[in-house]
Amino acid sequence: MNHFISVRDVPNPDALVEESIRLKQYPFAHQNLGKNKVLGLIFFNSSLRTRMSITRAAYNLGMQVMALNVSQDSWQLEMEDGSIMNEGTVEHIREAIPVISSYCDILAVRSFPGLKDREQDYKDRLIRSFAALAGIPIINLESATLHPLQSLADLMTIRELQKTDKPKVVLSWAPHVRPLPQSVANSFAEWMIAAKMDLTITHPPGMDLSVKFTGAAPIVHQQENAFEDADFIYVKNWSSFSDYGKFANMPEWMVTQEKLALTKNARLMHCLPVRRNVVIADDVLNSSHSVVIRQAENRLFTAQAVLKKILEATQ
Amino acid sequence: MNHFISVRDVPNPDALVEESIRLKQYPFAHQNLGKNKVLGLIFFNSSLRTRMSITRAAYNLGMQVMALNVSQDSWQLEMEDGSIMNEGTVEHIREAIPVISSYCDILAVRSFPGLKDREQDYKDRLIRSFAALAGIPIINLESATLHPLQSLADLMTIRELQKTDKPKVVLSWAPHVRPLPQSVANSFAEWMIAAKMDLTITHPPGMDLSVKFTGAAPIVHQQENAFEDADFIYVKNWSSFSDYGKFANMPEWMVTQEKLALTKNARLMHCLPVRRNVVIADDVLNSSHSVVIRQAENRLFTAQAVLKKILEATQ
Amino acid sequence: MNHFISVRDVPNPDALVEESIRLKQYPFAHQNLGKNKVLGLIFFNSSLRTRMSITRAAYNLGMQVMALNVSQDSWQLEMEDGSIMNEGTVEHIREAIPVISSYCDILAVRSFPGLKDREQDYKDRLIRSFAALAGIPIINLESATLHPLQSLADLMTIRELQKTDKPKVVLSWAPHVRPLPQSVANSFAEWMIAAKMDLTITHPPGMDLSVKFTGAAPIVHQQENAFEDADFIYVKNWSSFSDYGKFANMPEWMVTQEKLALTKNARLMHCLPVRRNVVIADDVLNSSHSVVIRQAENRLFTAQAVLKKILEATQ
Repeated sequence: MNHFISVRDVPNPDALVEESIRLKQYPFAHQNLGKNKVLGLIFFNSSLRTRMSITRAAYNLGMQVMALNVSQDSWQLEMEDGSIMNEGTVEHIREAIPVISSYCDILAVRSFPGLKDREQDYKDRLIRSFAALAGIPIINLESATLHPLQSLADLMTIRELQKTDKPKVVLSWAPHVRPLPQSVANSFAEWMIAAKMDLTITHPPGMDLSVKFTGAAPIVHQQENAFEDADFIYVKNWSSFSDYGKFANMPEWMVTQEKLALTKNARLMHCLPVRRNVVIADDVLNSSHSVVIRQAENRLFTAQAVLKKILEATQ
Repeated sequence: MNHFISVRDVPNPDALVEESIRLKQYPFAHQNLGKNKVLGLIFFNSSLRTRMSITRAAYNLGMQVMALNVSQDSWQLEMEDGSIMNEGTVEHIREAIPVISSYCDILAVRSFPGLKDREQDYKDRLIRSFAALAGIPIINLESATLHPLQSLADLMTIRELQKTDKPKVVLSWAPHVRPLPQSVANSFAEWMIAAKMDLTITHPPGMDLSVKFTGAAPIVHQQENAFEDADFIYVKNWSSFSDYGKFANMPEWMVTQEKLALTKNARLMHCLPVRRNVVIADDVLNSSHSVVIRQAENRLFTAQAVLKKILEATQ
Repeated sequence: MNHFISVRDVPNPDALVEESIRLKQYPFAHQNLGKNKVLGLIFFNSSLRTRMSITRAAYNLGMQVMALNVSQDSWQLEMEDGSIMNEGTVEHIREAIPVISSYCDILAVRSFPGLKDREQDYKDRLIRSFAALAGIPIINLESATLHPLQSLADLMTIRELQKTDKPKVVLSWAPHVRPLPQSVANSFAEWMIAAKMDLTITHPPGMDLSVKFTGAAPIVHQQENAFEDADFIYVKNWSSFSDYGKFANMPEWMVTQEKLALTKNARLMHCLPVRRNVVIADDVLNSSHSVVIRQAENRLFTAQAVLKKILEATQ
């Protein structure tokens, strides 16, 4: 594995899950792999789980870590070729990216979408520019359209808990109080499809995702119908793809115990942070159905598997 | 030792001081203890001495460190059960704390009081919630009401310098330009009492502390009287406990050479930072009476002793 | 070497370049040198290249690193003796510096000038105070008037690429959109002079530097004349020394291919970040003349050489 930007960089998602499961059991078994190696973390947006889990993952492999918090005010990057940089941007990516990468062995980057200009956001230019210009492996810590480290942890969690060969997995839209990116939902859909899950997506009319990511997965507009016989319910809010960035707060889409009762005793999943009693009701999160803490815990071992595969490939 | 939240978590404060004194002499004697262990630092408020001293302490023990600076704007935590999270708070402590602790072996937390609502502040809920929900040892880096790492360094400094078996220690209120928490004074009082020091407290009428922490220590309202025969003068401003959060700037309470002349050649202590010529006069801080730099230096070895005891207990 | 504040701390600049070149080839050859040593980084201003390169340099030597981002709002330091600290400053350097240095083995400090008061700025008090009060070696990460780590990397880059014994090096002022410090230019001049380069400086009338740093180097006001027969063109904007802090945006001073054609096939240098098509034209930066990425890459190995020399001196 060279870069880890989308599921397309992963030859075999389930092999990566198996590696993650081994690392969960023996986290310190590969400490020489990262010796003299440094992971650079570049945050154009804030991060908590992702930052801590990949930092710990790097430490477990014997790597050192350098994090850079880029406030977009203080270090605005120019991405256009030929522009006259006499305004806000202070450095061009043609300098910034090769320079930063010369100090690191692997670079991981987080940068959210603006949610104003769909065409711009969906080019995912910043992370793609890093991959093109860095000369070292790039890891996506959540880009404008994708969050593959989250999806890999989600897949691992399902593999740990599934009771049938091909569980029914439902990705359900849920209410929120402000517009959120589509990245978690996009990635979840493409990873589930890559892993040949039985995926159903449910959302209100107009709150659609790009078919580029949802592929042939059935889209259901009645949440209750979608939940029938489900083994896993993955809850997440996202803003509209077609009416780009539009958000809706429809309290009737909150996930409750009553809705969970329609499922086949399903496990409840969410990437966190979750607003209780807005996205998911308290009694669901407090019940044994919820596996959200396990998902977050698995972020560490899946990040470690990604780092391990990249380190092995660059030996 | 499991948690280090207050002096009540320490079976024998003086044994911990002795450990700190040994580590000051041999700081690198226990480097395998922290191998593969990660200390997480969570700052809800800014920190300088505390952050640097515990980071160095962890390095001396072979640990790695992950620090998270939480601006209360960007990651407001919900602490109330049952609340509908449709406003400022984005994550509930029931998710946040178990998740963060799953990436760390020990977690250290700083969170100051609001100084508006005494009842809320004195529940010290955030640090107590971390202890309840983390599943790993918690260290208090200064909470709403306590700063035990400071007090342990203060006790160590007194033990290094005392010339009599039971020195007279005076905790003296001093002027300041804005309201400060009571945490340093509260902790100092309870640690001095636990170590069976001859403690006297002096402050202007109304600038009292909670008797929960000051216990049976005599309270004197004439600073000069309190200073008589003192071996150690511990200077600190705090805002009122009874008239909660009220502050006073009474320049006549500043500690000067004249006042120090009333003591038994006392050592002058302060936790730093100190506003010169407001809290303590220049000539006192510049004199050989001052041991404030030694106190700060001892923060490293006392933090290391706390980490060492916790690591040993979790082996 | 004890401190690294200016070229005057370096007995032999070219010996330090040779050390840097060796480290570029064998970066992990001295990993025991930094064992149990901690580098403290204190940023009064933001940093990207400098922060990452010295952090990586420390890791390559087996050191640990602690960085402190000091917002000048939250931790204003008092530098005047005798002041009554009842306003913005919360800690005096007489406490702050010895305390911080007690947690570190080497301390590196960045602090920019205010560009309002020349006399104040040119005393370079903060970095000098650290050197006076710390009791441990101090490294200058760019002070009010100097940026020696940059200049050492610049000298290394010239040594790697020069084709004649005494190349002609031109330091050229260039346009910018806001006033910048003189520190990079000051340091470059004094390092070139120390290394006995054939240095020419070109700038518009009034955009002069202090002769304290430029010494006997010829000053030319016609950029084209200066460029004739040059082997290296070092481009940089700075604000005026004589009309202190005044800035000028004269687009005709931008470095272009036409101007470069006047040189002896010169290499183009810049410390980065560079505003494209304001300071230097795109086609120059995209051409093989540009060595700006190499300069930045060399920041790592020169910082490592400085750390190595200091560690060796304190053994």
